[in-house]
Amino acid sequence: MEKLKVGVIGLGQRGSMLLKDTFLTNSNVVVTAVCDLYEDRVEEAAKNIVEAGFEMPFKTLRYEELVDKNKVDCIIVSASWDVHIEMVIKCLEAGIPCGCEVGGVESIEECFELVKTYERTKTPFMFMENCCYGRREMMVLNMVKQGIFGEIVHCKGGYHHDLRHEVTYGKELRHYRLNEYLTRNCENYPTHEIGPIAQVLDINRGNRFVSLSSIASKSVGMHEYVMAKKADDKELVNAEFAQGDVVTTMIKCERGETIVITLDTSLPRFYSRGFTVQGTKGMYEEATDSVYLESDMGDSEHWVWKPNWGNAEKYIDKYEHNVWRKYIEDGVQAGHDGMDYLVYNTFFEHVKSGEPMPIDVYDAAAWMCITPLSEKSIKAGGAPVEVPDFKNLK
Amino acid sequence: MEKLKVGVIGLGQRGSMLLKDTFLTNSNVVVTAVCDLYEDRVEEAAKNIVEAGFEMPFKTLRYEELVDKNKVDCIIVSASWDVHIEMVIKCLEAGIPCGCEVGGVESIEECFELVKTYERTKTPFMFMENCCYGRREMMVLNMVKQGIFGEIVHCKGGYHHDLRHEVTYGKELRHYRLNEYLTRNCENYPTHEIGPIAQVLDINRGNRFVSLSSIASKSVGMHEYVMAKKADDKELVNAEFAQGDVVTTMIKCERGETIVITLDTSLPRFYSRGFTVQGTKGMYEEATDSVYLESDMGDSEHWVWKPNWGNAEKYIDKYEHNVWRKYIEDGVQAGHDGMDYLVYNTFFEHVKSGEPMPIDVYDAAAWMCITPLSEKSIKAGGAPVEVPDFKNLK
Repeated sequence: MEKLKVGVIGLGQRGSMLLKDTFLTNSNVVVTAVCDLYEDRVEEAAKNIVEAGFEMPFKTLRYEELVDKNKVDCIIVSASWDVHIEMVIKCLEAGIPCGCEVGGVESIEECFELVKTYERTKTPFMFMENCCYGRREMMVLNMVKQGIFGEIVHCKGGYHHDLRHEVTYGKELRHYRLNEYLTRNCENYPTHEIGPIAQVLDINRGNRFVSLSSIASKSVGMHEYVMAKKADDKELVNAEFAQGDVVTTMIKCERGETIVITLDTSLPRFYSRGFTVQGTKGMYEEATDSVYLESDMGDSEHWVWKPNWGNAEKYIDKYEHNVWRKYIEDGVQAGHDGMDYLVYNTFFEHVKSGEPMPIDVYDAAAWMCITPLSEKSIKAGGAPVEVPDFKNLK
Repeated sequence: MEKLKVGVIGLGQRGSMLLKDTFLTNSNVVVTAVCDLYEDRVEEAAKNIVEAGFEMPFKTLRYEELVDKNKVDCIIVSASWDVHIEMVIKCLEAGIPCGCEVGGVESIEECFELVKTYERTKTPFMFMENCCYGRREMMVLNMVKQGIFGEIVHCKGGYHHDLRHEVTYGKELRHYRLNEYLTRNCENYPTHEIGPIAQVLDINRGNRFVSLSSIASKSVGMHEYVMAKKADDKELVNAEFAQGDVVTTMIKCERGETIVITLDTSLPRFYSRGFTVQGTKGMYEEATDSVYLESDMGDSEHWVWKPNWGNAEKYIDKYEHNVWRKYIEDGVQAGHDGMDYLVYNTFFEHVKSGEPMPIDVYDAAAWMCITPLSEKSIKAGGAPVEVPDFKNLK
């Protein structure tokens, strides 16, 4: 079968890693076009492609030139958050299937435009949330769908990731996060945690987010880090970071479940996505990587705690998701413990087959809209804000 | 030194346990009066007192008869939540020092009355939140006060305790929780977690809660439990539980910190108070009983996770709180791993010395008011509600 010709827009940290670890190693695709605002990134990408034994790709600094059916069969958007939707819309209008990397959006209007453009063009679109393909997330999803945890009542998640270096070295790294943290105060990166939770709760498949409210803590982590590590950078020393260190968002769902998600990226801490699922028959908690099933426990064992730590691994033989069973049988492939391979291979296979994308434009809109809605709620002192019903826009 | 004469109002689960494990074993006190609505409980308590070698106490079913300086030097209120404040006010007005067990209040007005009665009478009052005396909570508090975690930004806690048996067997156990769960939907038990957090954040000592908002999940856990365990109890089978299974409350503090607390008592799970403290130099997390200090970590170690599990114990030699150092030197005494001994012995010592109580009427009001305010917020769809400034009531 012929290889899919892939165009990549955005070759920063994420795009360049995807290219090397995920695209150049996937035998179903060939990268035929690359684009970035910076010429050195484009040249570096082209060099990597050629060194991997492929033909020199089309190179451009203007993404519009890459959106061309003669050059590519599909496009990956891995640019900065603020231009994602504009680029995706251009792809969809050109009839070129598009996979878009994660991140929050600038405004709720972008979500409406994305949905409307898709409904008008019907061009295939997938939102590339790799954490939906995490091994533990998929095992828990599989257990949920089998009813192992009973009726699901409450979920929790977070982006707990110390990004102080990445953000404060934003100028040197040419990373857009610096500007986001200087100018906005919101849940700026909700999708790693809300993606797997949305799948657990059937969001856009019989359920939906109806409202959310957010509060932000004071912003002190970045400034303290700057004073310790970059005290000679007068601009940063004097900068006021708008972004609160910890942003908490509570979400209510139509079927009555509640969700709490946390952005927690400017304090020293270990990495976690805090994935937690609670139902009427048991729960999973990522913090302790533990499964608690009523059916496995005696009456007095609800006092147990440490003994459960790490016991989720015991359930993997029985509840491994089929996607992961097949992946392991095929031989583990690289990139974020397999998540990147799985999410991109799924996209490429669906582009080829024309089947409906598993993470679609409605999911993208529902998950990404949390960013501007949280911003609005924080500005309004934590007031609840309605979440649009993207599947039924007027 | 003469023994303190103690009166106990309320001899249910909590009161009878305190009597046996904490009061009859404390050489500084003698229980001279006991009261409950149920005669068998009063008789049982009196029997226990006499069997422990003490004189027969004064016995009554009417608590007003116990509020008498001739009978007692101080009073412990461990009755049902809904009558706590009424009883405390009666004690304070009689000039009898009073220790009040924890629980939410029925209305914000009760908090105002409590504070105003104290300000008028100046009778010593202590709120008996034993979790403020937990060993780990006190170690973390000690670390916070020494600046080990830097500037504190965010705290988390919860009452994660499977109470399905206690609630649904409320009639047999004569437990007031059943009625609370049938009729109210709120954060009904905030103080176990908010107490230690309030101490970490200097609440009422230069900081205060300014507003909160709450959401409740659907209520399905209790009903499913009833159907499994009490399907022959027609009344319970047909009952609608008002209380949502999981109630989340976000709190904003005057100095800019945020707090999230969770009530989680009607789904199968392990016990936890979820105590988490995050600052600019590190954090403590109860779920994994781990301490993460930037100063102990290399640059790339923020990806660590499991290796930290349980490492908090390593910090105990250096950061054990003096209260606990002394307690262990004196020989560990019974009741909730020492917490009950410590909170009650502190109260008795302060009654004797006349020194200001460490957990006072303002703390009680600020912590307990979360119950009616969360109820109000839930009814208003999660709208933020102002928390009164109890130290400056007009």
